[in-house]
Amino acid sequence: MSAPAIAAVDWGTSSFRLWVLDSKGSVLAERRSSEGMLVATGEGFSSILERHLAAVGAPADLPVIVCGMAGARQGWVEAPYVTLPASLDGILAGAVPVPAQGRTIRILPGLAQRSAEAPDVMRGEETQLAGITPLFVQGSHVICMPGTHSKWVQAADGIVQVFRTWLTGELFAVLSKHSILRHSLGDDIAPPMPDNQAFLAACSEALGHGGDIGPSLFRVRAATLLNDQKPEVAAATLSGLLIGAEIASARRVFGPLSNKIVLVASGSLGMLYGAALRLAGCTLIQADADDAVRSGLFEAAKRLGWAGHRS
Amino acid sequence: MSAPAIAAVDWGTSSFRLWVLDSKGSVLAERRSSEGMLVATGEGFSSILERHLAAVGAPADLPVIVCGMAGARQGWVEAPYVTLPASLDGILAGAVPVPAQGRTIRILPGLAQRSAEAPDVMRGEETQLAGITPLFVQGSHVICMPGTHSKWVQAADGIVQVFRTWLTGELFAVLSKHSILRHSLGDDIAPPMPDNQAFLAACSEALGHGGDIGPSLFRVRAATLLNDQKPEVAAATLSGLLIGAEIASARRVFGPLSNKIVLVASGSLGMLYGAALRLAGCTLIQADADDAVRSGLFEAAKRLGWAGHRS
Repeated sequence: MSAPAIAAVDWGTSSFRLWVLDSKGSVLAERRSSEGMLVATGEGFSSILERHLAAVGAPADLPVIVCGMAGARQGWVEAPYVTLPASLDGILAGAVPVPAQGRTIRILPGLAQRSAEAPDVMRGEETQLAGITPLFVQGSHVICMPGTHSKWVQAADGIVQVFRTWLTGELFAVLSKHSILRHSLGDDIAPPMPDNQAFLAACSEALGHGGDIGPSLFRVRAATLLNDQKPEVAAATLSGLLIGAEIASARRVFGPLSNKIVLVASGSLGMLYGAALRLAGCTLIQADADDAVRSGLFEAAKRLGWAGHRS
Repeated sequence: MSAPAIAAVDWGTSSFRLWVLDSKGSVLAERRSSEGMLVATGEGFSSILERHLAAVGAPADLPVIVCGMAGARQGWVEAPYVTLPASLDGILAGAVPVPAQGRTIRILPGLAQRSAEAPDVMRGEETQLAGITPLFVQGSHVICMPGTHSKWVQAADGIVQVFRTWLTGELFAVLSKHSILRHSLGDDIAPPMPDNQAFLAACSEALGHGGDIGPSLFRVRAATLLNDQKPEVAAATLSGLLIGAEIASARRVFGPLSNKIVLVASGSLGMLYGAALRLAGCTLIQADADDAVRSGLFEAAKRLGWAGHRS
């Protein structure tokens, strides 16, 4: 077995993921937990990180490269946003050291779009982008990165030009937990399969109405009251409406360029967005989000001389 | 002072309003509380009602006419929905008795739109409509009734033909309390004034994008992070986006008919929707929502022979 070269950490708002990588970027060990920034600001970032490193027997001097909300102002150490247009290479080179730790730790910056009409920020997705740069080195591309806060990015030749955020995942969460729709969805919500008919019909409806799902949301409730709609149908419908609306809306913003999409996602979310984007008539290039962020972190470690060979 | 003829009650999900009216419909006393259906299913509808009647010294035999969620299946006594197309006169004549009470009590039914593509329901707004029938007796009209669940109704000659529900008020509540936007809006949220520039700009933006506010919601957060946006500006922006989106969406659904709107609302909500509808180029006829529901309840009491003269 090869020797560990670095630990790569994707530290989000509500999730923590760590990989121990060798000098070629191969995974030697992995940890996942829900100790995201929200937990870490209470318990301490350092103690959570060291506990996970100890659990995989990481050497005391293993350097750690981090991306995500750990670099937010309310996080561990602020890694100030890089302003658009931004080179992904520049982001990887801009890691901020975490001082006074027993080991070398650096946090990658996020991206800021400082425009009056569309201010926007990201932390973590820029590292996924850096991990899939080969997919969009030449020409202009639109990249869809679904999640709690979905990011759609236009990039060309390794430069991020514009991006926008949709609250799709969070809208599903707050509507299913806190709105009147919760009575129709119930407590035991699983994501629909990508060939679910209610999901596809709702998606199609949202696409057909240019993303306007205003009068469709309450229908999810009314169909339970009037038609004995099952909870799983209600959940699939809400999911389809929100994802379809996001895609219709993003295509309005990004125009014809969005006919060909680089989709960066994992698991069931990747399958759902894949189905929805195909329904919208898009051609897809798919990349796994976990692989992407790990590759981006490894690229940053290479630039720091911690692993691999500088190109 | 004239003698009390009836008590009229608008019993919503989260609010209770009672008026004691004389035989001409004039208000002799009024009670308002937050003892809506959600409270009443625990404490008991009867005890809440009797407590408020006792507080205004109502006679033991004063009859009570009720509309709203008290007539829901999960309410006091179910008053089954009347199916569209529905005559407002028929709704008023369809009050269901509450059995085994010390006094005569009737609850008005709600309305159901039993269509496969747009199932919808209302409870309470049909009584407001009945209270403003003179505003739309001749020809086809679109009526906007904003609230937690905004209802837009197409009616002609006293017949309700179609309606749709927008979750606008509830979306504002769940986004401002439970989503990441809460960090930008803060805890002390007051409705904006109707001439608030952030409200009008956001409204205009939503109207211009055909109601697509997908990428605009997260901007409310990003503008705080990047531009030190004040909480009241964030709240006015979110309010403008949601109300503007509702109007754009309703105009898509109801078409040219929605150029002239009967707006049924009270207080600050009425002023905000008034400003937003005028921004959208609509001509308005305005009616007060409280007056409307009270008039509708009084009309129902007249048909029961409890007050006034049968027409």
